Amino acid sequence: MKLRDLSTPSLVVDAAALQHNLATMAKALPGARLRPHVKATKCTSLAKRQLALGHRGFCCATLREIEGMAAAGLGEDLLLANEVLDARRLGRLDARVTVAVDSPETVAAAASGGVREVLVDVNVGLPRCGCAPEDAGRIADLARRSGLSVRGVMGYEGHAMAVGERAKRAEACAASMATLRAAHALVGGEVISAGGTGTFDLNDVATEIQAGSYSLMDTSYAKLGLPFRPAFCVYSTVVSANASFAVCDAGLKSLGMDHGNPTIDGAKVWFCSDEHVTFSRDAASSEPLEPRVGERVRVWPAHVDPTVAYHERLHLVDGDDVVEVWPIDLRGW
Amino acid sequence: MKLRDLSTPSLVVDAAALQHNLATMAKALPGARLRPHVKATKCTSLAKRQLALGHRGFCCATLREIEGMAAAGLGEDLLLANEVLDARRLGRLDARVTVAVDSPETVAAAASGGVREVLVDVNVGLPRCGCAPEDAGRIADLARRSGLSVRGVMGYEGHAMAVGERAKRAEACAASMATLRAAHALVGGEVISAGGTGTFDLNDVATEIQAGSYSLMDTSYAKLGLPFRPAFCVYSTVVSANASFAVCDAGLKSLGMDHGNPTIDGAKVWFCSDEHVTFSRDAASSEPLEPRVGERVRVWPAHVDPTVAYHERLHLVDGDDVVEVWPIDLRGW
Repeated sequence: MKLRDLSTPSLVVDAAALQHNLATMAKALPGARLRPHVKATKCTSLAKRQLALGHRGFCCATLREIEGMAAAGLGEDLLLANEVLDARRLGRLDARVTVAVDSPETVAAAASGGVREVLVDVNVGLPRCGCAPEDAGRIADLARRSGLSVRGVMGYEGHAMAVGERAKRAEACAASMATLRAAHALVGGEVISAGGTGTFDLNDVATEIQAGSYSLMDTSYAKLGLPFRPAFCVYSTVVSANASFAVCDAGLKSLGMDHGNPTIDGAKVWFCSDEHVTFSRDAASSEPLEPRVGERVRVWPAHVDPTVAYHERLHLVDGDDVVEVWPIDLRGW
Repeated sequence: MKLRDLSTPSLVVDAAALQHNLATMAKALPGARLRPHVKATKCTSLAKRQLALGHRGFCCATLREIEGMAAAGLGEDLLLANEVLDARRLGRLDARVTVAVDSPETVAAAASGGVREVLVDVNVGLPRCGCAPEDAGRIADLARRSGLSVRGVMGYEGHAMAVGERAKRAEACAASMATLRAAHALVGGEVISAGGTGTFDLNDVATEIQAGSYSLMDTSYAKLGLPFRPAFCVYSTVVSANASFAVCDAGLKSLGMDHGNPTIDGAKVWFCSDEHVTFSRDAASSEPLEPRVGERVRVWPAHVDPTVAYHERLHLVDGDDVVEVWPIDLRGW
């Protein structure tokens, strides 16, 4: 199939850019040093590419992601880096599943749900899940008394991830990791799981980095000067145009909007509606876009994760050819 | 099934509030005066409720919505209120399908795709699709020469929809409708299709109102003082809590974020992550929420359309009972 034959809006992934990103990361963090996070891409076909490059353990955010990875034969070492109050769907899987715990309730859920291994999730500065660092030992003891094996700790320095200046990002990451290291001393175990695309080469405390966005990237991560290329966009059609502005058929329902508007090369984006992006020619651009009705336009999302979650499949392209179609098979909960 | 047995996050619809909203609208705009827009709810089961109340024509934003409505036996009079450059998927349906056109290219697409009826889409002030009002007659003539039947005009006053003060909303609506009326004089036909939930009782020019959000509502529309009740929320579980804040398992991927953060009764919402909302007790509230791990929390979305589009089904509840489960069967494109 040719790119031109795709209906729009469609997610399009540049095969060469994807391969560059996967290879660059595999070189920087070989094998078990990377635990690819599948939440950003929700696609077992893409995860198989990561496996082929040597990463055998994966990180998930939802029960559905864990179940789908196990069903796809990718269950050698799955981490649910999230708390659950009902772990029965994990306990019944034919896969190695580790789950994050940060409270007596989540420890009890893991134990009664039939999960055997846990990481103690520690709050390292992002106000989200994770116990207070000084409580990590107590949670680990409780888990062990509940019959669970404690593999170590995890702590996501999400607040550091988008800090623009590299030195300040490193500083925020280091502060979080000092906290996590102290908690690890209370917990024990071999694993210190942390990090993400924004700190993949800054975090030298974590034994494994939970990066996911690096494979496809988005315009927010692109600002950080990382060695990964923008690999995916929402491919769209200009459905209306006049002298002042044009409109393409991507919109709120094909783009994650929490990081703001998407971008279009050579254009100024005005706003997004449910199924439309309104934009105009950017005269200040080196190659101003002159949109015509029927023309195809690449819309670059600001945030990869919630964008991918709207789509049923992604189309791997090499130039004008669609070379593979991958189901986004880990959506939902 | 009991509400308590639902896995989370799940979309939950209060059956009584939904019925109130549907009945209130059917009384205000009976029969063909309302053309319910299915883009907000993407659910043929809900559309069948609207049909049962007398609304036989429906409005859609995507080809998939049109196809799904036709397949569900709801194809008596479907309007694709959007421009398409390839109408072949419409022309082959066993349904009455009308499509919006605003350019020679979209007229040609309708004709060559086998569609028989069109509305001329007119720009009435929202910079999105629609021809210039003075071009409407020319587009209509071109459509007729192309063998298409021109049923009239449409023009969405979307910029008026969220104006908080009712008198100013009415003013913005009236200005848009004066434009649409003038364009209609150039076009002819029986239909003037416009409006939405925010102007349903202000727009007295449109022969049919394209409202959709009224059935479920959201926190943005709730600010307008309309006679519709908040009928749906994302039902979630508190997965982590401490003295400062708590975290539930709704997030960016179960909530449309373009209108901002969701709300939680009795709480202050801090921010949303992919699969989490971080919030805290709101001491200023009349009933401050005291979140405990394992507790269920209702998260009220700011924007109904992109929220629904993330979910596979919605659960109709009566008190603690889940009385029906409706597939959200019109997702995608």
